[in-house]
Amino acid sequence: MSFAATILTLYPEMFPGPLGISLAGRALAEGRWICDPVQIRDFATDRHRSVDDTPAGGGAGMVMRADVLARAVDHALERRPDAPLLAMTPRGRPLTQARVREIAAGPGVTILCGRFEGIDERLFDARAIEQVSIGDYILSGGEMAALTLLDACIRLLPGVMGAASSGDDESFETGLLEYPQYTRPQSWEGRTIPEVLRSGDHARIDAWRKHQAENDTRLRRPDLWERHIGARVLSPSGARRTEEEGR
Amino acid sequence: MSFAATILTLYPEMFPGPLGISLAGRALAEGRWICDPVQIRDFATDRHRSVDDTPAGGGAGMVMRADVLARAVDHALERRPDAPLLAMTPRGRPLTQARVREIAAGPGVTILCGRFEGIDERLFDARAIEQVSIGDYILSGGEMAALTLLDACIRLLPGVMGAASSGDDESFETGLLEYPQYTRPQSWEGRTIPEVLRSGDHARIDAWRKHQAENDTRLRRPDLWERHIGARVLSPSGARRTEEEGR
Repeated sequence: MSFAATILTLYPEMFPGPLGISLAGRALAEGRWICDPVQIRDFATDRHRSVDDTPAGGGAGMVMRADVLARAVDHALERRPDAPLLAMTPRGRPLTQARVREIAAGPGVTILCGRFEGIDERLFDARAIEQVSIGDYILSGGEMAALTLLDACIRLLPGVMGAASSGDDESFETGLLEYPQYTRPQSWEGRTIPEVLRSGDHARIDAWRKHQAENDTRLRRPDLWERHIGARVLSPSGARRTEEEGR
Repeated sequence: MSFAATILTLYPEMFPGPLGISLAGRALAEGRWICDPVQIRDFATDRHRSVDDTPAGGGAGMVMRADVLARAVDHALERRPDAPLLAMTPRGRPLTQARVREIAAGPGVTILCGRFEGIDERLFDARAIEQVSIGDYILSGGEMAALTLLDACIRLLPGVMGAASSGDDESFETGLLEYPQYTRPQSWEGRTIPEVLRSGDHARIDAWRKHQAENDTRLRRPDLWERHIGARVLSPSGARRTEEEGR
């Protein structure tokens, strides 16, 4: 079964875009995933095919209409009832590698891409839509966020990366940043690869990498480090306390 | 002066990609920004034009070579000495809207896109490169991260969004998530637009929106909320304590 990516968007021509090239492009050609962009405007009902209107209460820009989006969403739900339904929005829950893994393990994903000043909030009251943010910055629309989410999922689909690069050591998979990497040439601009990595002593190498990953996480990402430490603290009952859900 | 985006990549055909469409596409056609992808492989010197090698110390995948990347970086620095030089990597500092604003206000940006298992760390020891992460998940390479960063910058360039939509109210610009939006129809599936937004009382509307933004931030993003509150606490000397740099 191919992983089915349904994207509700005003710019279907953005898909697959960069996902038609390289790793994701090969996977698309091999049928490992399906790219199915859907034009939101096709669900407008007035003769101007309008999808947005001015914000209630005033303000700049335009807001996407709940009625039009609900029709597009209902159409997608009918076609792919098993796929999780996401909306990319800065008001959403921050995307994590754990959520990426869950989505990639499923049958596909349906992604609603907002544009303009946002989406009429009643859509989220009336339909079960997971609001997701890829980071604390503002994009011109949800399309780039959808491409980013899909890129993260597609590399994890069976057969895409191959066994040689399972990615288990990557940043965030262990709750830490990845350790620094080195490769040939042995010496470059007077800088040599750390001796331990040339030792052939795998226990020493593993210990060095673990130390580097911990140290870099502590220095660069105290937020990740605190969660990592917190997740390892034993509760008074002796049971391992798990990381709190969400942020 | 156009904003110059130089992208060092193994996949120059990914650019401008989705940035050739819609808002960013119009801005590109109008010359408000320049898209200048550079093929890293052109800076390889052996007859196989190799850009990567196996990780020192063992492990899956391939690591990008410091010597080849340094030549590509030096070439870009020569052409655009004033542009900040970034590398997109999960080991980097999380991208913020404040950093996006700074970059967009400058002459352009040079972005190094990693692939495979990462980049030989000596490159970052030997060159002043700002390592940036767009979020805590793993992509197939830096290209999608570069597109995301550029999308965030381009919408802020003069003339791109127009005065009607300056984006000052957007999520993160105030340190908070944006308030929820509503638009016509007035009533949809039995749900009406909140009464206050139809009152015409702008003071009441502003107060309601501020309350909603604060409440949603507190509930959805306790991490943002704590920083927002922290930034407003007065220090003992009475001076306003500013948000700590970094995370």
